Amino acid sequence: MASSSCSTSMLHRGSFNPKQIKNCNKELTFNHSSFCCKSSDHCKSLSATTDIKPSRLLLLNEKSMKWKQTSKFSLKNSVQCRALEIENKPSFTIGKKFQLGDVIEAQQFDRDTLSAIFDVAREMEKIEKNSPGSQILKGYLMATLFYEPSTRTRLSFESAMKRLGGEVLTTENAREFSSAAKGETLEDSIRTVEGYSDIIVMRHFESGSAKRAAATANIPIINAGDGPGQHPTQLREGITLAFCPMQALLDVYTIEREIGKLDGIKVGLVGDLANGRTVRSLAYLLAKYQDVKIYFVSPEVVKMKDDIKEYLTSKGVEWEETSDLMEVASKCDVLYQTRIQRERFGERIDLYEEARGKYIMDRDILGVMQKHAVVMHPLPRLDEITVDVDADPRAAYFRQAKNGLYIRMALLKLLLVGW
Amino acid sequence: MASSSCSTSMLHRGSFNPKQIKNCNKELTFNHSSFCCKSSDHCKSLSATTDIKPSRLLLLNEKSMKWKQTSKFSLKNSVQCRALEIENKPSFTIGKKFQLGDVIEAQQFDRDTLSAIFDVAREMEKIEKNSPGSQILKGYLMATLFYEPSTRTRLSFESAMKRLGGEVLTTENAREFSSAAKGETLEDSIRTVEGYSDIIVMRHFESGSAKRAAATANIPIINAGDGPGQHPTQLREGITLAFCPMQALLDVYTIEREIGKLDGIKVGLVGDLANGRTVRSLAYLLAKYQDVKIYFVSPEVVKMKDDIKEYLTSKGVEWEETSDLMEVASKCDVLYQTRIQRERFGERIDLYEEARGKYIMDRDILGVMQKHAVVMHPLPRLDEITVDVDADPRAAYFRQAKNGLYIRMALLKLLLVGW
Amino acid sequence: MASSSCSTSMLHRGSFNPKQIKNCNKELTFNHSSFCCKSSDHCKSLSATTDIKPSRLLLLNEKSMKWKQTSKFSLKNSVQCRALEIENKPSFTIGKKFQLGDVIEAQQFDRDTLSAIFDVAREMEKIEKNSPGSQILKGYLMATLFYEPSTRTRLSFESAMKRLGGEVLTTENAREFSSAAKGETLEDSIRTVEGYSDIIVMRHFESGSAKRAAATANIPIINAGDGPGQHPTQLREGITLAFCPMQALLDVYTIEREIGKLDGIKVGLVGDLANGRTVRSLAYLLAKYQDVKIYFVSPEVVKMKDDIKEYLTSKGVEWEETSDLMEVASKCDVLYQTRIQRERFGERIDLYEEARGKYIMDRDILGVMQKHAVVMHPLPRLDEITVDVDADPRAAYFRQAKNGLYIRMALLKLLLVGW
Repeated sequence: MASSSCSTSMLHRGSFNPKQIKNCNKELTFNHSSFCCKSSDHCKSLSATTDIKPSRLLLLNEKSMKWKQTSKFSLKNSVQCRALEIENKPSFTIGKKFQLGDVIEAQQFDRDTLSAIFDVAREMEKIEKNSPGSQILKGYLMATLFYEPSTRTRLSFESAMKRLGGEVLTTENAREFSSAAKGETLEDSIRTVEGYSDIIVMRHFESGSAKRAAATANIPIINAGDGPGQHPTQLREGITLAFCPMQALLDVYTIEREIGKLDGIKVGLVGDLANGRTVRSLAYLLAKYQDVKIYFVSPEVVKMKDDIKEYLTSKGVEWEETSDLMEVASKCDVLYQTRIQRERFGERIDLYEEARGKYIMDRDILGVMQKHAVVMHPLPRLDEITVDVDADPRAAYFRQAKNGLYIRMALLKLLLVGW
Repeated sequence: MASSSCSTSMLHRGSFNPKQIKNCNKELTFNHSSFCCKSSDHCKSLSATTDIKPSRLLLLNEKSMKWKQTSKFSLKNSVQCRALEIENKPSFTIGKKFQLGDVIEAQQFDRDTLSAIFDVAREMEKIEKNSPGSQILKGYLMATLFYEPSTRTRLSFESAMKRLGGEVLTTENAREFSSAAKGETLEDSIRTVEGYSDIIVMRHFESGSAKRAAATANIPIINAGDGPGQHPTQLREGITLAFCPMQALLDVYTIEREIGKLDGIKVGLVGDLANGRTVRSLAYLLAKYQDVKIYFVSPEVVKMKDDIKEYLTSKGVEWEETSDLMEVASKCDVLYQTRIQRERFGERIDLYEEARGKYIMDRDILGVMQKHAVVMHPLPRLDEITVDVDADPRAAYFRQAKNGLYIRMALLKLLLVGW
Repeated sequence: MASSSCSTSMLHRGSFNPKQIKNCNKELTFNHSSFCCKSSDHCKSLSATTDIKPSRLLLLNEKSMKWKQTSKFSLKNSVQCRALEIENKPSFTIGKKFQLGDVIEAQQFDRDTLSAIFDVAREMEKIEKNSPGSQILKGYLMATLFYEPSTRTRLSFESAMKRLGGEVLTTENAREFSSAAKGETLEDSIRTVEGYSDIIVMRHFESGSAKRAAATANIPIINAGDGPGQHPTQLREGITLAFCPMQALLDVYTIEREIGKLDGIKVGLVGDLANGRTVRSLAYLLAKYQDVKIYFVSPEVVKMKDDIKEYLTSKGVEWEETSDLMEVASKCDVLYQTRIQRERFGERIDLYEEARGKYIMDRDILGVMQKHAVVMHPLPRLDEITVDVDADPRAAYFRQAKNGLYIRMALLKLLLVGW
């Protein structure tokens, strides 16, 4: 049986192989019902013939299956698997180690996974500052396969790869691969590019593209944005989030770095909460922490939608909608400002202008904020934060952008060489 | 005399210098009549003062002159040279080693050269799989000078260079160099770029550009496509082929890897045989092998042209034209499918649609194919091979694309550091 | 006081840190009045607590302040600083060593600085020729932030960086950062990109952009061209030059390499002297040398403007305007040809055609030139130098282009790792 050799060799330290991880994930995914049902026996035989503890074997199953199953396969088998996992959970003594196969959406990360990734990001911060010329990813090749240009995103990934000694193949006009004239499917393009590289960072104009790529590829895929998603996308836990999970990860990481904790924090989300995908994803991830309080401050036309509110309520997160930015500023640990996007208003320039001028962060806001609190923003900004705020040490947005580098370095390391 | 120092230093192992090879090639090319006429004496004096065997000196001449002369200079001198080569041939005991100067067209490769390149490609395959971080080309810089974008081609070359530890300068908008506004000649652009790099991979919209670049440059040029060739191009051996030799090389390499031999094979070429440059070049190269049988299967409007048919006949290659794809499929070692290109049909959409649907490869075709046979395709494909064929082990087209990487690695190695 | 720790750590060899240099430059710049006034005491205390000689401390101030002050701050303080510098100058025994913070404009270089840079450029020449795979800049990351494409310029910088073992992040569509839709300021874009890299090479369509970037960034900025400068720009010493200093530096370097000296040379500037920024910058830099004689040879409509003529006169440089190219050719050490740019003539094609054909360099010109003299051209050329000149050893323009590589290598080395 293929899965046994797979699991065996995969879990040996020192023989980490991302292609194998991917293939095993796939095998587990495709065969999971039989695998799950037989797994305790299978584990016993594996642990008898190898030096792997049964707990690690199951741990792998759990992590790698969790989101793949729910997203692509029948829930029925998934439920059987989950039952088995829970049954075995107490014995997961090695604990925090897991293997990432792909990075596709915010929903694939739980609290433990986030914490583990953040530990690696902090290591990366040290490497970036103190070890120019790190060779951790020497010999690895990342392809940035961008079907629409996004210089900012591309440069941040390429910097992350090169800071770790890796190399990059760049394309910002990948549309050519699947041009009308040539008509190649995304799957064929991925099969071609995976022959040239060890990992693909992909940005695409169609929702769900990254998942399709991940299902095809034998190497890890990182979703650097797919969408804008005019077509309805698959719901996870009843809500739709931005499919690029990077911003949400780096936002949560920044809060932990700046405030020192995530449990018990008060966060004000300000601006366009209806369309701003970053605030929706951030609210989603914050629900994984204890005693979080979220304030929504936005013009009426771009209020936070009910799905997120209901999700937060279901998870026991306290939230409040208010128009008093000053009061929120005085209470919060984090004020998260976003840009009001003109393109969301179509012809209604009047509504745009009204919305846009309503909640500006300036020195008056700083004046009421607590000393330890910070202002965040996903960038780019227009005038929703005035330039005179920049010099204040509580202006965290450029540090936040830099944290994106550390998160990307961490994910590249984890996907390519593991822990 | 310049050529003596040239030949002397050039042939020492360990002091391989592609610029010198190129300059020597040029010198030989420009001065070949005197060189050829004097060469046996010249060789004796060289071998007396150095440790180089006369056979190697002449070997170089033979290989480097072969196509340069025929393409650019009077045949008269070339004939004298050839006579001398043949005379000396029996003493070429070291045999397979030659020095590539540029890679411009399929016609420059003979059977021995192909075999030698394929040996290196197989080494490259091992390196790519087992030695991440190979440093064979460390310190070398390749410029991809693309006058029109071709992401697929560019990425494959850049991957090949980086897999060997080399570095890359990328441009996909090289047209700017010779823009209407600025009007620089290709020759001037090449002289500039050769100052920045060690090898140039060039793609250009004009037939013959790569040859012009090679004649100008002191560093090796690889032709990654020039044409589409609206202007009639120089005929070689009475036929015109695609000027990018990569696809033909990797196709022949794939057949050898998949079938295990080249002599005695049966190949079915299917689809657009009139315009498909890859099938024309492949048929040309297959004529270098023994007992090859070729079947042409194509809609009437895009039949294989007479020049290739006549060339095959002149070389003793058996060929047959048929419309029975099933029968061909049952007999062949290789079924080579190609895309019917809509743009070739102009306004005649009806003819396009008819041609396009006529020879589709699907599971029915697989059903009659032999167990050891393979399906190949230059990619990208549309629906001329159905997706359900992909999972069959005989579907070789993605392995074929990957072989392109090994062939490129091999050529880069040979051009930059030699054997 | 921040500046003390700053100066202390900055001047230790072996702990060179471009970010610190930049920050210190800024601190000195912003605080210079108090710093200058207090500097002798400050130096004493510094030299008492460290092993740095007072001379080096002041040296730093002098060099780093020189152009920053004049460009951005009141001249009053600058004058005080200068007075202090002059007072201390005799004790600057360590002499030639200075620290570059940014490379923005030709005016920031004096004769000593040029000489020191040229020494490094010659080292770079040796490295490029003899040490493939130099690792001097290993671990450093350069971002080419191009707001308009310029393949030639970009490739030359990227080659320079890679020849020294450094790595590159490339973008030629940086306009996206500050697109109409997104509206990010240049300053915010710079703050983002400096998080990803160690040095930024920037090209922008607006005059003064590079200075704005340098004022914002904590890492070195190299100006690869800003302008074309439709808006009037800040005058320095009464004249406006091209803001990209590269061409002027490599031109002066080429003259020294080709002729063996700069004092006492005779240079003919030919072609479009009104709009050609390179000839204006070259004339400006030549004024720093002794006994230089400049000939201006141009069609009436594109004559050299008065500001440069007056500047040369004020510096004691002899110059002459003439239409006799043959006579100039017979006298000069350097004939510097430029392209007549059609776009400068608008609708007046007749004037363009007249101007363009007037001063062509051909073999007749070579016939009267001295044996040691050279023909230079910034490239690209059209037909203002005929192709049959290329083979003459006095045709220096391709060597000149290559010298641009060495100058860029030298500047990258100096900005990133110092002397």
